[in-house]
Amino acid sequence: MVASLKLTKLPVSVAARECRIALVGFGTVGRSVARILSTRPPQGLRLTHVYNRNVERKRVGWVHEHVNWTQEFDDVLKSDADVVVELVGGLDPAEQWVRRALESGKSVVTANKQLIARKGPELLKFARQHGQHLVYGASVAGGIPVLSGLQEGLAGDHIVKIAGILNGTCNFILSQIENQHMPFAEALEQAQAKGFAEANASEDIDGFDARAKLAILSRTALHVNVWPEQIATHGIREVEEIDFGYAHDLGCTIRQISRAELQEKTLFAGVQPALVPRSSPLARVSGSQNLVVSTGEFGGETVFSGFGAGGDPTAVAVVSDLVWVARNRHNGAYAYDVESVRELQVSSDFETRHYVRFKVADKPGILAALANVFSRHEINVDAVLQRPGHAKSELPFVVTLEPCRTQKVQEALNEIRKLDFHVAAPVEMPILG
Amino acid sequence: MVASLKLTKLPVSVAARECRIALVGFGTVGRSVARILSTRPPQGLRLTHVYNRNVERKRVGWVHEHVNWTQEFDDVLKSDADVVVELVGGLDPAEQWVRRALESGKSVVTANKQLIARKGPELLKFARQHGQHLVYGASVAGGIPVLSGLQEGLAGDHIVKIAGILNGTCNFILSQIENQHMPFAEALEQAQAKGFAEANASEDIDGFDARAKLAILSRTALHVNVWPEQIATHGIREVEEIDFGYAHDLGCTIRQISRAELQEKTLFAGVQPALVPRSSPLARVSGSQNLVVSTGEFGGETVFSGFGAGGDPTAVAVVSDLVWVARNRHNGAYAYDVESVRELQVSSDFETRHYVRFKVADKPGILAALANVFSRHEINVDAVLQRPGHAKSELPFVVTLEPCRTQKVQEALNEIRKLDFHVAAPVEMPILG
Repeated sequence: MVASLKLTKLPVSVAARECRIALVGFGTVGRSVARILSTRPPQGLRLTHVYNRNVERKRVGWVHEHVNWTQEFDDVLKSDADVVVELVGGLDPAEQWVRRALESGKSVVTANKQLIARKGPELLKFARQHGQHLVYGASVAGGIPVLSGLQEGLAGDHIVKIAGILNGTCNFILSQIENQHMPFAEALEQAQAKGFAEANASEDIDGFDARAKLAILSRTALHVNVWPEQIATHGIREVEEIDFGYAHDLGCTIRQISRAELQEKTLFAGVQPALVPRSSPLARVSGSQNLVVSTGEFGGETVFSGFGAGGDPTAVAVVSDLVWVARNRHNGAYAYDVESVRELQVSSDFETRHYVRFKVADKPGILAALANVFSRHEINVDAVLQRPGHAKSELPFVVTLEPCRTQKVQEALNEIRKLDFHVAAPVEMPILG
Repeated sequence: MVASLKLTKLPVSVAARECRIALVGFGTVGRSVARILSTRPPQGLRLTHVYNRNVERKRVGWVHEHVNWTQEFDDVLKSDADVVVELVGGLDPAEQWVRRALESGKSVVTANKQLIARKGPELLKFARQHGQHLVYGASVAGGIPVLSGLQEGLAGDHIVKIAGILNGTCNFILSQIENQHMPFAEALEQAQAKGFAEANASEDIDGFDARAKLAILSRTALHVNVWPEQIATHGIREVEEIDFGYAHDLGCTIRQISRAELQEKTLFAGVQPALVPRSSPLARVSGSQNLVVSTGEFGGETVFSGFGAGGDPTAVAVVSDLVWVARNRHNGAYAYDVESVRELQVSSDFETRHYVRFKVADKPGILAALANVFSRHEINVDAVLQRPGHAKSELPFVVTLEPCRTQKVQEALNEIRKLDFHVAAPVEMPILG
């Protein structure tokens, strides 16, 4: 955020004028935004336009009769709306529409995480060039006010680490595998039936949704510019019920963790399933909820949690951003501090303990072979865990490794994969905390 | 060469000028604020003055040599400082000093919960009359950005309920009774030895600290003006280890809960020990940490937690407020929405389940006598719990009551107290969730 541009207070009349809002996209979130603006509008906000393709099939009777419905985006641009709420999602045409709105003198509020993760820095500059706001609190963790909390409430700290559960679908699936003892595919079907999972399930379960959010969080909390493609991302498809059993034996559970950590001149960042201690706040997130832990040099750990997705919680974030724009649209304040964002080397090579689960056709000498490879790579084995009751033809067991760089473990595993006793590829996860 | 120093300074716009800070009070929090401003000052903040009584004994070498140390508050008023950070605490002279600072054209950042709880509304108006900011994010929950989160990040929701653990000392003491099986007095001694408890322990353990914070939270989150004296407040002195045993039998633990809830035209508010389900976020707060759960009509439950006290976390909140003032001091924005705060009837008469623990000299007919009184007051007994292994001369047992107004339970207990079998006064707590 930048210091004020205007030094004098505005005449009350200008500041007090209603802020006129055009909703672009009338899906689940758009409807929820309209509902809040129709039933409990914060002072000074007024819904004036709704855009959607084939708008007639979207029209509802419960918004104010003066709201203009249109299926031409140009009508929005030409209108007297002060703020465009972009809820169409994706990059195309969202990016062009955001630019055109800003060019035509309208501020933009968006929940579009992919757009902001990929184009946020240049769109923020573009907005400033046109004297407009671009605010995107709803793009990360829905109704949880984590971006504003990091940007404003913790502005006095030096945040060095963030870790979060940023994808509710993954958390729901992992919770189902853990508690209902169901296989991954069945848990995924349930998530889709409940409407959690994105239409393209891969976005969720392969981690692309979470890494876009992590990129945005890293800029805001750690002031480091990172692009989604720079974040090593690993999905949850390989996690099985047996892994929860071994995780429990280690005092842990398994969550899909998005994390970023500043260490000198490097930003370590990654999205992947990980073992987290059961005493950690990350272990206690149930179902489709989200949680973010930030660690500051001075304030220690601060935790934000709640509903990270869904129409109403996401709409709360959108409307909160609209309140912010209405309060600040004439005063020269900006929601995000663009200037302080640095470019740093980005790495996924965390130093951490590791969990490796093997599934083998049992025969003598397997442990010796593994120990031999790890040893040659200078990796110390911490423990070997083998739960009873499994057939020798498909025997799962776990090796935990003392703290070392992830890259070294990958190199060892590349060798190990070539050995002839596997019946499934080894599954590696970091052990946090 | 000295004479040319002035000329080498570039003319800078007023907006870009550094924000000069006078620290008033150099105790634990003041030192931590100075440390952040000396080691990692956010852009645009500069410590220029430190006030303390007998300042010489406080002086440290690690702040910038240009900082002015003084033991005369008038020196601060006459100085070129832009913001006064009030960290002397209490009402007198803090209130007068805050007013004089605002009058002399300085904004004020304070961590003083008693001052803000009692005088906040009029001081905010006074600040606006003088075109200055008064910001107090550090007055509730220290380093956890809950006030800004409720005010800004959840501005789009309609918050109907807040519940929190706002006093770390009480939480530490209750945790020790529960986990270390120590009596209240010993746990209190430990808290004092660790420096958690306030000098006057009653402020913490009798709930006065928490109720001041709840008053501030209620204004911010629920937009209702409530004074500390209107909040029914009950301390934790009567909670014993046996209560944790019975609470566990009921799937709960015991925490000192501060809560406020909007119901039509009434604000229900209270501070007291309560049974909370072990699955609740409130049950998971360990040691001296703080946690706040807000419930919104649209966004559901949002949880904020972290370090609610201590020099460094509180200093983070102070410095974050300073960043806010520096960003907004010339633009006419205000940190708190004064206009929307309403006056409502305040009541402590929550409708809830109740836990009542008796300690009696056992004889026949006690349960019948209790049941008789509850029945005459139209209160339904839910369950009777009696753990084995206690002497008949001092027998503890618990009665749980179906949901009813607290006032009715109090009336019944006033009758029950007169019965002749008690060896200790009955202990009543609500059962939440």
